[in-house]
Amino acid sequence: MATAGKVIKCKAAVAWEPNKPLVIEEVEVAPPQANEVRIKIVATAVCHTDLHHLLESMEKEGFPVVLGHEAAGIVESVGPGVTEFQPGDKAIPLFISQCTECRFCKSPKTNQCEKAWVGSHNVLPLPKSRFTCKGKKLLQFTGTSTFSEYTVVNQMAVAKIDPAAPLDKVCLLGCGICTGYGAAVNTAKVEPGSTCAVFGLGAVGLAAVMGCKAAGAKRIFAVDINPDKFEKAKVLGATDFLNPKDHSKPVSQVLSEMTNGGVDFSLECVGNVAVMRSALESCVQGWGVSVIVGWTDMEDFSARPVQLIGGRTWKGSVFGGFKGKYAVPQMVKNYLDKKVKVDEFITHNMTLDQINDAIELMKQGKCIRVVINVSSQ
Amino acid sequence: MATAGKVIKCKAAVAWEPNKPLVIEEVEVAPPQANEVRIKIVATAVCHTDLHHLLESMEKEGFPVVLGHEAAGIVESVGPGVTEFQPGDKAIPLFISQCTECRFCKSPKTNQCEKAWVGSHNVLPLPKSRFTCKGKKLLQFTGTSTFSEYTVVNQMAVAKIDPAAPLDKVCLLGCGICTGYGAAVNTAKVEPGSTCAVFGLGAVGLAAVMGCKAAGAKRIFAVDINPDKFEKAKVLGATDFLNPKDHSKPVSQVLSEMTNGGVDFSLECVGNVAVMRSALESCVQGWGVSVIVGWTDMEDFSARPVQLIGGRTWKGSVFGGFKGKYAVPQMVKNYLDKKVKVDEFITHNMTLDQINDAIELMKQGKCIRVVINVSSQ
Repeated sequence: MATAGKVIKCKAAVAWEPNKPLVIEEVEVAPPQANEVRIKIVATAVCHTDLHHLLESMEKEGFPVVLGHEAAGIVESVGPGVTEFQPGDKAIPLFISQCTECRFCKSPKTNQCEKAWVGSHNVLPLPKSRFTCKGKKLLQFTGTSTFSEYTVVNQMAVAKIDPAAPLDKVCLLGCGICTGYGAAVNTAKVEPGSTCAVFGLGAVGLAAVMGCKAAGAKRIFAVDINPDKFEKAKVLGATDFLNPKDHSKPVSQVLSEMTNGGVDFSLECVGNVAVMRSALESCVQGWGVSVIVGWTDMEDFSARPVQLIGGRTWKGSVFGGFKGKYAVPQMVKNYLDKKVKVDEFITHNMTLDQINDAIELMKQGKCIRVVINVSSQ
Repeated sequence: MATAGKVIKCKAAVAWEPNKPLVIEEVEVAPPQANEVRIKIVATAVCHTDLHHLLESMEKEGFPVVLGHEAAGIVESVGPGVTEFQPGDKAIPLFISQCTECRFCKSPKTNQCEKAWVGSHNVLPLPKSRFTCKGKKLLQFTGTSTFSEYTVVNQMAVAKIDPAAPLDKVCLLGCGICTGYGAAVNTAKVEPGSTCAVFGLGAVGLAAVMGCKAAGAKRIFAVDINPDKFEKAKVLGATDFLNPKDHSKPVSQVLSEMTNGGVDFSLECVGNVAVMRSALESCVQGWGVSVIVGWTDMEDFSARPVQLIGGRTWKGSVFGGFKGKYAVPQMVKNYLDKKVKVDEFITHNMTLDQINDAIELMKQGKCIRVVINVSSQ
């Protein structure tokens, strides 16, 4: 490759400070160091977690940063010690690394990894970001930073995928779809013939609906205060539709009455602590399982102890409990085999220059997923 | 039996109103009606749930009542339709019924029963209590009411036990020991080689320690602010002892540091929402399971969503998840076979006349279990 070993100058969307529009800048992306992979990002989508960092972060220390973590691209070059990847490989960056060696990676019970990005600044296993702009180091977001034509990621945070995969579609398997689908299949462990409720019908919630259906649920309640979302939920497998605004009773009571005591499984895909409680209370006592999928760290969730003592289980998961290196290539294959839907989640296509428009659509709930076409394949 | 079919006049401890000492009264116990069993109570213990009703109930409607639910006795007579029991059978009343026919009873996932006592007054499946005193009906507590020489219980709320069982010992299997032991074995599903923490070392907590040990836990932390409890915890299998008052850091942080990130399983056996949170936060992310065993319905429990999203599970159970008709006879057998300890939980023996002294000891945390010897065997 002509660029291997050299600094690449390219376009990236930089978040200079909280609550301000991103700025398209020319950045320098240093070559990958030991165990690192430099990836040409072909397509990236905007996820609520990006917005969360941009709009809800209280600490200026998390900036300047290159956001973006749901993406797909092509390996441009690799650093010393990388044997799993070669230039030209199609790849999806993983915001949860999989080092394959720590006690979490070795346990079948979790997709956590001791090497994953941690801490308040969402800085990653890389000791230093490889991004520079105007002489300033830019932080890397969740170890990925995909709002850029090129990014450098540790090899433990990349999944190699089928060369036949269309990157402008499967980029969505880098976060939202796997998060919701896996929460139903892996975390809730939805059972055949069961009754489920999914709260919140963004990409994650819609993917949770798809996961419930794949697991054989008999009845899937799609719950959202925006009834425009119901049509897509139906496409993905929802059988019943519930707008809490249509009822004077709490939605948990409505669901309880419609299901003889509550659903077997519920999934909270909003990131709102009141909805988390409602989702738990919508579960049947004795064996109901409620999974928190939506992200918030601003408030506590709460409930009465009797809700759990009565036999309910409250769980949560991140990235749907999927170990990325194993699961993402499989989900890509499932998509190519038409076992998993992805195209249905894409409501808009834009370019990197339009990233602030994409963020605005997301804020207003007017899209499911906007795919940003960053580079040609 | 000379008494069969007749009203029995006998002694009972009556709670006439909240927050007042119980009064030993002569009560009338009507004969059992269809599907009911009248039991001579030989021994009963005092449990925190009795105190909870007596001391924390805000509603006078729950009175007058005969408390008591952890007991053993001998069947005196049976009503029409009862074939499972005969006079002379040794029996343990069940505060969670097992009708064997409802969808909960038919599910292996729960010990709930649709016919169980419900509602704010803790009134039971019996349409009316069989207790009268001074011309007034007395309410029945959790379907059992064992602070009485005789009680009437629906046959679905009685377990028949081994004739060899000493009733003044196995009475403890009617609640506390099964509750803690089962929470570890059935609800948490403690695994061989795992690390556990039990918060609160009353009878339930000590039984949870015993359950963790029976399940093969390698390391069992016993946590209590009263270090006098540690000696008994050691007898029951605890390996490490932690008094939160000895540390300036939160106990969850102390445990996390002592266990490289947190325990695999934690059990809250206090009934305090702050301890519930602490127990959850003491679990390792990725797969930690925390079980709420202690009872309170006065406040919400709460935590940050990231605690669950990071892969922890929050559960709860009542009566240790045991289906009483099946499990209680087995636990009695385990005791007779010396596989389960019971004697170690008994710190005091008293008579029914001394019940207020027993309650006082319980309130002050100066006993594990007081066995009230109600009648001769």
